Amino acid sequence: MDNFRFLNPTRIIFGRGTENQVGREAAGYAKKVLLHYGGDSAKKTGLYDRVVNSLKAAGVEYVELGGVKPNPRLSLVREGIRLCREHKPELILAVGGGSVIDSAKAIAAGVPYAGDVWDFFTGKAEVKAAIPLATILTIPAAGSEASTGCVITNEEGWYKRAFNSEYVYPQFSILNPELAFTLPKYQVACGAADIIAHLMERYFTNTQHVEFTDRLIEATVKTIVHNVPLVLAQPDNYDAWAEVMWAGTIAHNNLLNTGREGDWASHDIEHEISAIYDVAHGAGLAVVFPAWMKYVYKHDIKRFTQFAVRIWNVDENFWSPELTILEGISRHEAFLKSLGLPTRLADMEIDTSRVEEMAAKCTSNDSSTTGHFVELHQKDVANILMLSK
Amino acid sequence: MDNFRFLNPTRIIFGRGTENQVGREAAGYAKKVLLHYGGDSAKKTGLYDRVVNSLKAAGVEYVELGGVKPNPRLSLVREGIRLCREHKPELILAVGGGSVIDSAKAIAAGVPYAGDVWDFFTGKAEVKAAIPLATILTIPAAGSEASTGCVITNEEGWYKRAFNSEYVYPQFSILNPELAFTLPKYQVACGAADIIAHLMERYFTNTQHVEFTDRLIEATVKTIVHNVPLVLAQPDNYDAWAEVMWAGTIAHNNLLNTGREGDWASHDIEHEISAIYDVAHGAGLAVVFPAWMKYVYKHDIKRFTQFAVRIWNVDENFWSPELTILEGISRHEAFLKSLGLPTRLADMEIDTSRVEEMAAKCTSNDSSTTGHFVELHQKDVANILMLSK
Repeated sequence: MDNFRFLNPTRIIFGRGTENQVGREAAGYAKKVLLHYGGDSAKKTGLYDRVVNSLKAAGVEYVELGGVKPNPRLSLVREGIRLCREHKPELILAVGGGSVIDSAKAIAAGVPYAGDVWDFFTGKAEVKAAIPLATILTIPAAGSEASTGCVITNEEGWYKRAFNSEYVYPQFSILNPELAFTLPKYQVACGAADIIAHLMERYFTNTQHVEFTDRLIEATVKTIVHNVPLVLAQPDNYDAWAEVMWAGTIAHNNLLNTGREGDWASHDIEHEISAIYDVAHGAGLAVVFPAWMKYVYKHDIKRFTQFAVRIWNVDENFWSPELTILEGISRHEAFLKSLGLPTRLADMEIDTSRVEEMAAKCTSNDSSTTGHFVELHQKDVANILMLSK
Repeated sequence: MDNFRFLNPTRIIFGRGTENQVGREAAGYAKKVLLHYGGDSAKKTGLYDRVVNSLKAAGVEYVELGGVKPNPRLSLVREGIRLCREHKPELILAVGGGSVIDSAKAIAAGVPYAGDVWDFFTGKAEVKAAIPLATILTIPAAGSEASTGCVITNEEGWYKRAFNSEYVYPQFSILNPELAFTLPKYQVACGAADIIAHLMERYFTNTQHVEFTDRLIEATVKTIVHNVPLVLAQPDNYDAWAEVMWAGTIAHNNLLNTGREGDWASHDIEHEISAIYDVAHGAGLAVVFPAWMKYVYKHDIKRFTQFAVRIWNVDENFWSPELTILEGISRHEAFLKSLGLPTRLADMEIDTSRVEEMAAKCTSNDSSTTGHFVELHQKDVANILMLSK
């Protein structure tokens, strides 16, 4: 186990009807909030009205900024920063999924920064302050509701880039599983793929002696694997949704990477796909991850055997670890497919014409590689993308 | 799953040599600290010197209060409160195990309170403020380094009582597994029994649909069960100690009881034993828990079957859940015994002469019961104590 520092100060407010507490909670931080959200779904479901009523009842004013799209855009972040500088809210309240929350995080960090907010994503500057933010989560997926991560797409060149900072931990996040009842099935499946990918990126590590976090990750994956089919079959199954939502938060709140180095190549590769083709992040991950596993598994036969046996209950073949592993990867891919997800580029109607471009962009950094479990060069990324065609 | 609120803002600083960072960390909170510790072991091992040197190097002054005993006493807490009011440290730094940390928590809460600090333990008053505290943990056991809990023994009548408050979450806790290398084996075993009991108290719940936290608890118990025998056999096995120490913290940091009601009868019953006989808390738990399980398992056959199968790998007998369960309980007890712990009152040279007195004290509260999974009356507590004779 590596030495580590861990902090997660986000207060979780979990359960039925909890969005109605938002006014009271927000009033502890702010007299005025920036209410940040996506499209019309929050208005259609009545969530928007409940939030606004709760804020009003608590005497909290609000300025609005809607219109966040999936793969949230830098231009709207800049608009949010401008709005905040003008109206000076003391809290940004993100109502939505990972895209809305990430957009809110970028705004929160951008407001007190004198330079261009994109600097945080290129590594030119580090976040040193942020205005407080809070969230009401509507889809278990990105884990952004209790994470340090923030991913934004720059339309100039379609670069999708991330930063991590403790300054953008939400002050509080409200998680009501009921809000997920109305999600389209495909979005649910994409969210599940994202959660599983967060867990697998952490699981595949070169750090030795990480039994405890291994077991916690396995526990979390198994919970997702058991409950996501239930919520797809029964969209109003509160109990199953509650498991998925809480597991989705813990999957990405940094607890499960304490003392271990994650991989993250699949996320990087997927970011290149969704930046160009604007597909759902989770769908892209469902395509990339199985291909990545097939490409790298020989790097650590023991870890991949543990993955197959403990997560996918493969009956271990002690004479052929490789058969054990391939069965595990096969079950992993079959599970994603069973949720209605693409597992090949062709399933998303993406051909291989821009594979080299994506591989080049993905490795256009100081190290010219991506990933930690196995360091992938441009050629490797292209091979993985070809494996997933 | 029940609705819940969860917050854990303690920063964890984990790994080799991390105690040498204490001065720098403390300087972020204080110019002067109260340095609170137990007996001579911190001085013998050199830890005390490293801490003092780190504080001095960071320009942090300190006032000292040593002498915390296992089952920490109210009189020393009162002395600490007096010292703090006189010297006005901005941070209490607890260097030790659960006893030292709990003593520090009681002092931290007592300083800003006008009444008697014991009021928090009798329920007469609620903690509304506390001065900041931080810890350097020397033994994985109580989990107090990242918990809301605080247990103190009042020598007047030998009452051992607890309070819980978010105000006493440490600001930061330094966890260096190397500090555990020199612990006596019996203390290691008692610590393990305490950690396992924290997990089991949470596991045995009447709350339905708590799969995720069930699985996380199982993962944590299995980590303890695998690694504690390793550290007993190889006291300088850093890797195994790191698993035990981090698992011990997570076992009690409130994550694993999110959305579920725990039991806690065994803790209450044990507190009566250690208050009178001054035995180690973990040893008392190793005696009480198996007896408690035998007494209550019929209350929820499914949950106890899951316990036996998932935690103790019992080959499920589908025709006789009871045999499955009894085998699980038997393995649980055998494991505690294998660590060198008592599992019967007689092993601690305690007879049954004061069973009724303990049972009466344990249920001398508003409800006249203890426990939530099964509500135990005085007679039940006495029966459990007799089962453990």
